[in-house]
This record gives sequence, C-alpha cells and structure tokens, in this order.
Amino acid sequence: MPETAALLVSCPDQKGLVSGISSFIFRNGGNILQSDQYTDVEAGIFLARFEFHLDGFQIPADQITERFRSLAREFSMEFEIHFSDHVPKIALFASRLPHCLEDLLQRQQAGEFKAEIGVVVSNHPDPGEIASRYRVPFLHFPITPENKKQQEAEELRELRSRGIELIVLARYMQVLSEDFIANYPNRIINIHHSFLPAFVGAKPYHQAFLRGVKLIGATGHYVTMNLDEGPIIEQEVARVSHRDSIEDMIRKGRDLERTVLGRAVRLHLCHRILTYGNKTVVFD
Amino acid sequence: MPETAALLVSCPDQKGLVSGISSFIFRNGGNILQSDQYTDVEAGIFLARFEFHLDGFQIPADQITERFRSLAREFSMEFEIHFSDHVPKIALFASRLPHCLEDLLQRQQAGEFKAEIGVVVSNHPDPGEIASRYRVPFLHFPITPENKKQQEAEELRELRSRGIELIVLARYMQVLSEDFIANYPNRIINIHHSFLPAFVGAKPYHQAFLRGVKLIGATGHYVTMNLDEGPIIEQEVARVSHRDSIEDMIRKGRDLERTVLGRAVRLHLCHRILTYGNKTVVFD
Amino acid sequence: MPETAALLVSCPDQKGLVSGISSFIFRNGGNILQSDQYTDVEAGIFLARFEFHLDGFQIPADQITERFRSLAREFSMEFEIHFSDHVPKIALFASRLPHCLEDLLQRQQAGEFKAEIGVVVSNHPDPGEIASRYRVPFLHFPITPENKKQQEAEELRELRSRGIELIVLARYMQVLSEDFIANYPNRIINIHHSFLPAFVGAKPYHQAFLRGVKLIGATGHYVTMNLDEGPIIEQEVARVSHRDSIEDMIRKGRDLERTVLGRAVRLHLCHRILTYGNKTVVFD
Amino acid sequence: MPETAALLVSCPDQKGLVSGISSFIFRNGGNILQSDQYTDVEAGIFLARFEFHLDGFQIPADQITERFRSLAREFSMEFEIHFSDHVPKIALFASRLPHCLEDLLQRQQAGEFKAEIGVVVSNHPDPGEIASRYRVPFLHFPITPENKKQQEAEELRELRSRGIELIVLARYMQVLSEDFIANYPNRIINIHHSFLPAFVGAKPYHQAFLRGVKLIGATGHYVTMNLDEGPIIEQEVARVSHRDSIEDMIRKGRDLERTVLGRAVRLHLCHRILTYGNKTVVFD
Repeated sequence: MPETAALLVSCPDQKGLVSGISSFIFRNGGNILQSDQYTDVEAGIFLARFEFHLDGFQIPADQITERFRSLAREFSMEFEIHFSDHVPKIALFASRLPHCLEDLLQRQQAGEFKAEIGVVVSNHPDPGEIASRYRVPFLHFPITPENKKQQEAEELRELRSRGIELIVLARYMQVLSEDFIANYPNRIINIHHSFLPAFVGAKPYHQAFLRGVKLIGATGHYVTMNLDEGPIIEQEVARVSHRDSIEDMIRKGRDLERTVLGRAVRLHLCHRILTYGNKTVVFD
Repeated sequence: MPETAALLVSCPDQKGLVSGISSFIFRNGGNILQSDQYTDVEAGIFLARFEFHLDGFQIPADQITERFRSLAREFSMEFEIHFSDHVPKIALFASRLPHCLEDLLQRQQAGEFKAEIGVVVSNHPDPGEIASRYRVPFLHFPITPENKKQQEAEELRELRSRGIELIVLARYMQVLSEDFIANYPNRIINIHHSFLPAFVGAKPYHQAFLRGVKLIGATGHYVTMNLDEGPIIEQEVARVSHRDSIEDMIRKGRDLERTVLGRAVRLHLCHRILTYGNKTVVFD
Repeated sequence: MPETAALLVSCPDQKGLVSGISSFIFRNGGNILQSDQYTDVEAGIFLARFEFHLDGFQIPADQITERFRSLAREFSMEFEIHFSDHVPKIALFASRLPHCLEDLLQRQQAGEFKAEIGVVVSNHPDPGEIASRYRVPFLHFPITPENKKQQEAEELRELRSRGIELIVLARYMQVLSEDFIANYPNRIINIHHSFLPAFVGAKPYHQAFLRGVKLIGATGHYVTMNLDEGPIIEQEVARVSHRDSIEDMIRKGRDLERTVLGRAVRLHLCHRILTYGNKTVVFD
Repeated sequence: MPETAALLVSCPDQKGLVSGISSFIFRNGGNILQSDQYTDVEAGIFLARFEFHLDGFQIPADQITERFRSLAREFSMEFEIHFSDHVPKIALFASRLPHCLEDLLQRQQAGEFKAEIGVVVSNHPDPGEIASRYRVPFLHFPITPENKKQQEAEELRELRSRGIELIVLARYMQVLSEDFIANYPNRIINIHHSFLPAFVGAKPYHQAFLRGVKLIGATGHYVTMNLDEGPIIEQEVARVSHRDSIEDMIRKGRDLERTVLGRAVRLHLCHRILTYGNKTVVFD
C-alpha cells in the first residue's frame, strides 16, 4: 500500500462536492492530510485537491480509481489519483545552454523531485557529457527543417518506450510541432526567459535591454500549440539597471530561470497544478 | 440571512474531520465556497477554515453556532463562526507618526476592510485632526508612568462601550500592559518596523543602519505579553544600500509598514488567520 | 548661496571628462558629495551626475551655468544644473481613482518630495475635495473629443502661469495630445498599472487576469508621443494567484502603483534621472 | 598591458579628491569607464572606485601603484589597484552539503567569476568527488577540537603555497579560529542561512520555523573574529508559510544561499566592495 494519495478533481460547481469527496475518503478509512479547493463562482467551476493517508484504507490502491468513479459520475467530475509510491519518469530536453539542465539534475539528486530522470534529449551533442556525469541516458536528435517530423516521431517512440510521463524543456531552443505536443497535453513544461506576456519569441533579454525595463523575469509554463502562450505555472523577476548589459541580464536571468523551472517542475510532480481554460490553479 | 459564513476550527487531528464538517454544511443546504486545511502532523493538530454560502441554508444564522456544537464536542474542536453581514468595529491606536493611521483610514474608505473604524485613540493630540477629517471619533489619552494603569482602564471602558473587536496599533509607541492585552487576546495587531526577530525593541532602523543590512523589513503581528514576540502575521522587506541614511530607511520603511499592516488587518478581518502555539496559520 | 548643486551631463565619451568636470568643481572651491557616471561603451555616450557642496564656492550661483558653458562646449556636453534651494512646482493630474493622488499629497506632506504641489487638475470634479483638504488649488477640465484641444490649451496656460515644471499623471485616464506632451518633454511622469511592456493600453488588470499571470506590476515612466512606450523610470511587481479576482488584483495593484509612482517622482525631483534614447539612467 | 584597472580608495573626506584622482588618470592617458563615490558626511570619510581603460596609458602597469602613491600620501588615502589581467585564485571550503560548492564551480565554468578555483578544502571526504569532476585539487582536513590548531596551520600553508587570495565558505560548518581569519582579513566570504542579524548561530532554519517567520533569508558576509557579525555584502529573502516544514525551508533556502553567495563572490572579484567600520560599501 502506498503511503498517500493525491486526488485532483474538476467539475461544475454544486452543493455536496467537498462533503461527497471527503466522506468517500473517510468512510474507507483515509485521513485527509491536506485539502485545497478553488471555486470559480462566475464560471461555476469547482477545482480541488485532496491528499490523504492510505494507512488503514480499506480499498486496495489499484481499485481506488474504479471505486471513486461512481461518485465522479454523479458530479460529472474529471479526476486523477496519484499514489506516493509511483515515481514518474521525466525527460529533460536541452540545447547548448547547460544551466537549467544541470540544475534540474542536481535538484533531482538533492531529493527535490520525487521522480526519475529517464533520459536527456538534445539537438546538440554537448549535453551528452553532463547526462553521462549523472548517469542518465542521452539521446542526440539533430533537427533540421527537413528531418524534424521524422526526428520527432523517433523521439516520441523513445519517450514512450521509456515510459516518460513529463517532458521538461530546459532551455530547449527548438519549437515542438503541434503533433508532438498533442502527445503530452499539459505534460510539457517550458521555461521562457521573460515575464510573459512581455517579450514573447526570440531573444527576450535583448528585447528587455532595448526597452529599458527595470525588472527582468522568467516564466515556467505548460507548452501548448500557441508558442509562449500556454498556462503559466510560475514567474519570478529580478532587478536590473542601466548598468546591466545584455550579458549581465543573461547572467542574472540564469538564476531566475533555474529557480522558476525548478519550482514549476516540483509543483507538477507534487500534483499541485490543475489547468483550467488557459490558466493554472496551483495549490501550493 | 447573511450571504456567507466563515467557520474556523482547530482540534486534535483525527479521521473524519473534513468529512464531518463538510457534511454538516452540505446536509443543511450550504455550498462550500472555499475550504482550507492544515494538519501539523508532528503535533497532531488540525486547523481549518470553511467559507460557505448561506443561500438556502436550513438553520437560521443565529442558531448555527448552537447546532454545530455537538459535532464540535465530538471532535474536541475549538471553533468560531463569522457571518458576512457582521461589520466589526475596530480601534486605531496611533502616536505622532501619521502614515499608518492615514493609510488604514484610506484603505477603509477604499473598501479594503469590511469593518467600521469606531475610534482613533492616541497618547498625543495630533491624530485628532486626521480622525476628524475621516469623521471618526477621537480619544486623547496622554500616558505617563503614573497614570498608565488608570488610563488603560479608561481606554478599555471606552473600547467596550463602543463594541470594539479589534485594536490596531498603527505605530503606537506606548507599551500596553499585560492586563490590557489580556482583554483582547489575538485581537491586537501591531506593526513592528523591522523583520522580526531582527531588531526587536526601540529604533530598529537605527539598529539596521548600524548593522549595515542590505534589506530592511516590517512585521505585522499579534500583540502578546512578550514585547515583539507575538505570532507573526505578515512580513515584507525592501532593499537598501550604503547610500541609504537612517532617514532614507525610515522613508522606505513607511511604505513597508503601510503595506504590511494593511495586509495583516485585512487577513484578520477576512477571518483568514488561526493562531496556534506562537505562530499563525494564514489561509490566504 | 544654495547648499548644494546637482550637475547632470551627457555627451560623447572621451578622455578627460570626469577630470574636467571635477576639476571645475574643485578649482572653484566645491566639494563633491556624490558622483555617478555611466558610459555606454558601444554607443560612445557618457552620462554623469555630480552633486557638490556650494559652501565656499567662488562663483555666485546664478553665474555657475554661464561659467560652466565653456567646458561644456569643449566636450559637446548637454547639461543641467539644479540648485538645492529651488523648490519646483508640480501639477498632479487625476481622474476618479484617488489613491495615487492622495498618496502623493501625503508624501509631499511627509517631506519626501522637495517640491510644492502647485495645482491638482482633473477631468472629474471628485478630486477637488481631496485637493482642498491639502489646501492645493484645483482645476476641473472636463474633456470631450470635441473640446479636448481647447481644454488642453487652457490647461497649458494655467500650468505656465503657475510655473509648473513637472506634471504627474496620478491615474489620469485621459490620453494627452502630442502637442501637450511637446510642452513638457521628459517632464510628465505617468504610472501604468502593469509591468510594461506587458499589458499596454486599457484595463491591464483584466488582461493580467485573463492571461493567468502569477505576478502583477506597475511602471512609472515618462510620457512620450507613443502611449505606454516612454522611458521607464521604475517598476515593481507583486505576487498573485488563481485566488485573486480582478478586484483583488486592482486592490493589490493600488499598493504597487502608489509605491512606484512615489519613487519615480522622488527620483525625478532629486535630479537622479537622465534619459537617453528611449531609456533612463537612474543614479540612485 | 592589461585592459582595465580598478582603483579603490578610502580616506578622510576633503576637497579635490575626485578631481585629483581623475586628473591623475586623465593626465596619464586613461579613460574612466565607471566611477563611484560615497561620502559618509557624518564620519567625514570618502570611499570611491574608479575603473579605467589602460589602452594608451603612459605608465607601465607595474609602476602605476608606485606612481599613485604620492597623490595617495597627500590625501592620506588607503588604496588598492587591481588589473583586469590578474586572475586571482580562490579556495572553496565546504562540508557535507554540496549545493553551494557545486553552484560556485558551475558559475566559474559559466564565466561568471574572473577567477581560478585553486582548491577545494573540506573537513569531510565527500566534496572530493565533486572537486575531481571539475578537475580542481581537493584537500581533506578532518577537524577535531584536538587537531584544529594544527590542521588550520597546515591549511594556511597549503593556501599560501597555492597563492590563494580569497576563501569562500560554501556552507563550511567549522568555525575558523581568530588566527586563521587574521591571515585573510576581508578575504573570507561566508554564506549564513538566515537574514542576519536574525537567527545567528546554529540551525537558523529550525529557529525560523519555531519563530513562525513569513520570510526566510540568506546573508553573504565577510568573516571576522565575531561569528556571524562580519560586514554584510548581500542578503535576499524568500516567502514561506505555515505549510513549509523545516525541510521545505531548507530546500527553499538552498536557492537563496546559492544566489546570495554567488552574488557576493562576484562583487568581491569585480572589486566592487569596500569595507568600512563593520559595513560594506558595494558599488554595483
């Protein structure tokens, strides 16, 4: 029996939801450790997260989903149940810049992520050395306009065969195709090096420098069909001044990117994020 | 019937708490708008806040507390129920510095606080002019070591007769006696002009200047018998450098103090704070 | 004799600039209190600020500008000299929202600005009450598409006749015409309620809510012909979450707007800002 | 000839300082890139930093110090001149926690520090593996109360023989003796895991948890005889809530520690810090 379960629910708002869910947990012998709820009153939508101890739970873990389904049907719930003994596999995609890749590998080693880093993927050979240092398999997929479709198909095959559940773009500079993204809906996290929606697209630090902003930022978000427009998970900023050259902004930005991406990945792995419209609800 | 109710609960952790409370609300026709829960696993303590719509609730508002009591007894709960149609009266205590006092009066006028400012109290005559500008009654209680006990007794009489439920010390420079504080347990909010526990006591900006810190702060906290040691509600900091004189720190600090005190008072008035040991649980 | 002078200089970069300027000050008996310099190496531009004590200065204050001119000509400098005994007059433009207007009036009263608030101008009658409370003259100029040109001309006449040197748009909701702006180049400060360049134009908090950002911001900038695109003086952000409604963002934003606008106005009044291209150099 | 020189000066305030220094630079053919100055008016102390291009400078680099001395004597200056072609050697001291050590090694690799990491020193064998990964020599000095004096002497011998100019304590958990510290005055940078002066001494995150603060911090400072009381170089904070366990604080704190220590070391290596009393003047 796993130690805890995290139940994520979204459905039309109605009376009896918290009562129904918590009673299901209680009746079966669970103890709720944390419950979070957000109701969008205008849209009439209920979103919630329940984390409960399974010690003494009367339904075997592999039957909980099935047994919850009748309650879910009654309230038209969409739901997910995640067990604490499941260690998901994640893939890190990187290009030439190593700081986010190294940072994620170190966080994993420090125990910040309850996950296994199953593979590092890159369009460049350079990250191979870093991956090998952390004993993570490395796959090199050079991308050209001509081979992109084929390479992505091959990547997907590799990801599937390795059981990858989450893809993290750690400053991966290739744009993924819609087809690719459709295979991992809300399961691809990107770090964009600006406080979105400012400075979408290429070279945001150059744009920031030209505009003369006094704060630079970084944004962790899910990847959707629309470039830099997916649901935002986390953002942070740092102060800059006229003295900061583009190189200084890039340097300061590295710290932001690492911190924000680390937080976003952790929130996802702790099952604390629900998406809804083009936004996230983060129960942190 | 008021629009909503906020139920604050604390008790020993045990199975069935969320289920029991939410079922009580549901069975009686309430719709939970927001629920927050924190379990201190080590201490075995459960703290929670439920906000629910009363539209269609089957128990008259003035009987809800009574009817909830049996459930509360079963689980050894301490609880409070606050109704949205109750507009509490607060007293603002100030000395000579006007910025926090004016700020709170303005926030109230802007609709940030669901409260009535019932009286402004000061050991100086100066705040009288500000109070009158906002048409708030003003009481002047000069304090000396000799008259302190008597003046405090008189203040308490005034506060009681006006039905004051919360006291906010808006840079009030007198130390309240233990007796006085005992009358408003966790109902007196102070702003201390440092990031506690750094720089307790007098002249924290001078202390900060001497120590050469690179950040100054402000702390909103409940007042207890131990000066500057009560449960912390909110803190914030601002950057300073060698160029900032003590006067600059005091100026920058004013912005911090206003913001932090404003937030702390609002959290209290929205019934989002539970105290526990010498700490707060803030469900924001 | 005023106590201090602030000399702002910009010119093509070349050897001997700091030496030339500081020697001018020293030879004439001044003591430099603070000197700041920024060289844009790529553009070959030198920007600097010297603040010096005039106690014992051998050139009368009213001749310093004239006497500095030959040095300035030699190095093709543009320069300004500001004396500490000059108290500039500023005009505050507001619409219906009072928080920035009140805040500026209070900061002035607290001694944060070395300036006189010469007039409050509004397209609404409401700010008149606030202005009168602080004993500041109030002018009401209702603006319609038809009368705008004429009203602006009248406003300019009033500003000139009162000797206004700086205009602060304290959440003034009318767009100023190019003609109007041309009369106060880099002398009109606006507060925009977003972290520019994100969310230009109308209703930035609504835009922020829809985009689901995790930080909201405010930007103090000089007003130029291009709406929301003038040189940025100061920016700040605050954290928001899915729980924050648009109203919550507006409330949190008020604190940001006040703080940022207060800082921007103070930096301008302390002669700490040089503009350059579409950017500012802030010597704080 | 090196590209640039950084001149750091401190002396009693008097007229002619900026002029004298900048004229020395100009007369000898230098071009000032950046100049910063701070005058403590009360204490009558002048502190300044001049960075200038040496292209075309008429004094050979190895004679500049000598030639500047007569000016320095005239004004009773203490001064240092640092040349951009000098790459100082630094020693990293670590114990068991690897995050700061790894972070500094990575920053160095990313080009953030113009320095060579000459050696990693630890009282534990563990950091050896990390050091070897970055091809940095590793020295293991187990410390006991009995051998401390002797081991420190041996460490100093090693540091001297390797030409170490700066020691960085990257979460090094041993207290250095006064004798040791006296060998590297203002040349030992420590990261303390709290916003000093709050939570001096051991286990600051535990202290922070018990006190119920809403912000945790980190402080980079020079090490002096008085533990945790040396001049503060840089500080930063992060928000925590009741939900954060001590482990969460430690995790969030790692990000703070890395960022703050990285900044402090960089500021030192860029010769941007002057100490003065028990404070720093940071010209950033």
